[in-house]
Parts: sequence; C-alpha cells; structure tokens
Amino acid sequence: MAIDLRKAGIATELIGVDLNSANGLKAVELGLVDKILPEDKALAMADLVIIAIPVNAACAFLSPVLDAVKKGAVVIDTGSTKNLICKSVSKHPKRSQLVAAHPLAGTENSGPTAALEGLFQGKTNIICEQDKSSEESLALAKKVFDALGMTTRFMEPEEHDRHVAYVSHLSHVSSFLLGQTVLDIEKDEKNIFDLASSGFASTVRLAKSSPDMWAPIFEQNSEYLSQALLEYIMHLQKFHYHLMKHDTKELHRIMTSANQIRRVLGNK
Amino acid sequence: MAIDLRKAGIATELIGVDLNSANGLKAVELGLVDKILPEDKALAMADLVIIAIPVNAACAFLSPVLDAVKKGAVVIDTGSTKNLICKSVSKHPKRSQLVAAHPLAGTENSGPTAALEGLFQGKTNIICEQDKSSEESLALAKKVFDALGMTTRFMEPEEHDRHVAYVSHLSHVSSFLLGQTVLDIEKDEKNIFDLASSGFASTVRLAKSSPDMWAPIFEQNSEYLSQALLEYIMHLQKFHYHLMKHDTKELHRIMTSANQIRRVLGNK
Repeated sequence: MAIDLRKAGIATELIGVDLNSANGLKAVELGLVDKILPEDKALAMADLVIIAIPVNAACAFLSPVLDAVKKGAVVIDTGSTKNLICKSVSKHPKRSQLVAAHPLAGTENSGPTAALEGLFQGKTNIICEQDKSSEESLALAKKVFDALGMTTRFMEPEEHDRHVAYVSHLSHVSSFLLGQTVLDIEKDEKNIFDLASSGFASTVRLAKSSPDMWAPIFEQNSEYLSQALLEYIMHLQKFHYHLMKHDTKELHRIMTSANQIRRVLGNK
Repeated sequence: MAIDLRKAGIATELIGVDLNSANGLKAVELGLVDKILPEDKALAMADLVIIAIPVNAACAFLSPVLDAVKKGAVVIDTGSTKNLICKSVSKHPKRSQLVAAHPLAGTENSGPTAALEGLFQGKTNIICEQDKSSEESLALAKKVFDALGMTTRFMEPEEHDRHVAYVSHLSHVSSFLLGQTVLDIEKDEKNIFDLASSGFASTVRLAKSSPDMWAPIFEQNSEYLSQALLEYIMHLQKFHYHLMKHDTKELHRIMTSANQIRRVLGNK
C-alpha cells in the first residue's frame, strides 16, 4: 500500500510503526516508509493511519489508536475478520474516524521484503459498517482504495466473516493440512521436492503463510470457518466413498460439477 | 512436447493422432504437428511414438500400439499412473520398445490450445521398470527428456503410484472439492468472483482440470489415493477439533509445522 499510495501522490510523508525494529529498518532501507517512529509520536502526527496487524492485535489496539489520533484523522483497518474488530470499537466516541475495511489481496509472504507494487490492482475491497464512518472518513478511504485500483463493496461484518470463511479462510486451512499430510508421509523430503508438480506447489502455496497472522483469524472466525470446514470434510468423505466403491462415473460427475469454478472465476 | 522437441531438432516430422478431429485440425493450425493421420498409418511410419491419453485408454491401447509399431521404434507412455499401465504390457513381446514414463508437468487446461513452450523445463520425469526397456529405447527417451529440460528419476511402478498419490493426485482431489464446497454455499456466484482472493484462486486452480483425464487416474490409483485422502481428512478433523476448543496455540503449532513445506519446496 505504501508503494502504490506514494506513487499515486496520495501519501507524501510515510511513517512506519513496527514492533519488530529489524523490519522497521528494512522498510526504511527499501524506501517503503520515510522513517520509523514510536507509536504515540506517529499517531499524534498522522492524517491517515493504516492498520495492518494480526486481527487479535487490531481488536486490542484499535480503541487506543482512535484515542491517540488527531481530530479529523482517518484510521483504516485492513484485517481479514470484521465482526469482532467492529465490535471492539462500536462505542468509541471517535468511531466515525475509522473505516473497517478488508482489501482482499496478499501473498503467502510477510514482512517488508514481501511488499509488491500493484498487489491490489483489480482486486476487491470490502468496507463494513459504512454508516458508522463519517462521510469524510469514507471519502478519504475511497481515494485510497481507488488509487490502489480496487473495487469497493459494502457488507455487514457478520456477512463478511461468513463469506470469507468459504472464499479465503477455508483455502488456507485446506492448504496448511495438505502440506502437513505430505510432510508426514514423505519422510524423504527429496521426494517432495522432486515429485512436487506445479499443481501441488499451487495448492500448497498458502501453507507457507504466517501462523502469527492466521491463528487469530481462525480464532475470530471459528464459527463460520467450522461450518465451512465440516462441509469440505463431508465432500471429501463422499468422494472417498465413491472412490472405494470404484464408482468412476460418480467421481467424473463430481469433478464435472466442480469444473463450474472455471466459469465463475474466469481467468482469475 | 511437440513444440520443444521440434525446437531442439529431435523431432523433424511430427504426426498427430487424435480421436477428436477438431483438436487434430487445431494442432495442425497451431503448427504443433505437421499433419494428422489415422492411427494405423501413423504408427506404421513412426520412429518415436509419444502416448499422451487418459490412463484407462493407455491400458487398453498400449498393447495394440506396440503390435503396430516398426521394429526398433520407441514408444514413450506419459500417464500419471504406472502400475496398471506397466502390467498391461508386461508380457508383450515388444515390451522393450516401450519406456514407461511420467513427466511431472502440466496445467489445468487441456487440448492443443493449452500447449506451452518450455512447460517441462526444470521439472522431474520418472521412468518405471527401466530394466524392461531396451538400451536403445532408454537412450532415445533420455534424449527426449533431456531436450525438454527434465531430470529423470527411476522408480518401480508401485512406488511411483504411492508417491504421486500424495504429491499430485491428492492435490487435485483437495482442489476439486474445495471448489465444490464454495460453489455449494455461494449460490450468488458474484460473491465468489468478487471475494475470491488470489489465495483461493491458487488452491482451486486444479478444480478446473479435465474429469476425462482425472477420473481414470483416481480409479487406477484408488488404493494409495484412499490412504492419502483418509490421512488428509484426519488432519482436517484434528484441526477442526482444536478450532472448536478455541485452542489457538495448537492451531498455531500445526501451521508452524506445515510451514516446513516452504523449506522443502523452496521457491518451487
């Protein structure tokens, strides 16, 4: 975001705040931010604050962040869950300065060296509880997400969390455990490396993601994720049943039905 | 293969054989092959025959293909299973003219328009029962796979089928059913399209694969695939259990363990 917002001329002075001082230094070295400051100094100065931290930290810190920012400053949260995050600030007197967003983009890599120019281009952003944000806050957020090349949709937090359980969080669970299943069996790691087709690499890519980021997401979205996971397991078990019955026609039918994802996703 | 073997100068006259005449015409139009001929004519002329057909068709046709080829011609099979395919020709008098291979590369797309130059570069090829192929057959196969940029490993058919159940076939099952789970729930397909992150697109990519190709693979490798699938389901159920217990520490530990796949796969 720092790269693209600076390029678009929206951010002219970028200040980083990071618990990890090595990451902070690296971000300056890479030119992502102009300098690193302690949280209180940075928040007192900022016109726009973008929060990109694990969702449990967002729940804990959004309220003190709102306490600390200037009148008229805008805070954009970008976490992958929205229900508990929105609840954590629902009574805050400066709630209208916050825009609760979820820009749906990322990779399996973390930290300043993982920053990619144009990452958000053409992707979808979700804003929750837009009626609780002031017009001014929404206008600045719109400027930001437009500059990133994103299309914004509005959803309520519960609705958001339910959808992303299926379309994002379940993918991560399926990938982490596919990776673990193969690691368990293939004690000879050379076999994994040599025999891993590009198909395996693609399905297992998300298993490289940060547990620090994902454990709190799964915790906060456990109810919807549990439903998604149970439905996924049920599909796998049905497939296994037909596989064991050597009912190849039914396996073919299941795959043909799943092929619909090509039409729905296009070349995404 | 046609593109790369022509480019390497190994194939000078390329003849295509395809049940689907539209695909045959397209392959000529794209310059993948020089002409399309009926099977009997093509086999009578060929010095090298590459079989790239569904694995059930390979089991049925490899034997008549060996009957039909010239003395000294080499047949390379490229199917994703090796046990039943090798058994189908184990007693054939011209078995030594066959090299039972599995070049581990491909995409979710099928047909002549899916052909990609350099697809095999840097990937692994497996040859099974190399002692049943003649030295001359193996030498030509080596020339072919070297020209494609592949590294060849030797394995017995059972061993091959067991490994690929985990490192390739399971990925496809997991992806097909992830796609189906999301299609089932998200009746409003616009939500899938808009909310699908690049993570979902990556884990669900293989769900676009051809059922005609994959149903016979799953059928032929049902025993090992069943084991892999049961282990995968067990991991998912354990994860679900810890999710329901709100044992975030254990979820974190599971993901940290799965992260090892990054070290094993590198930038693959």
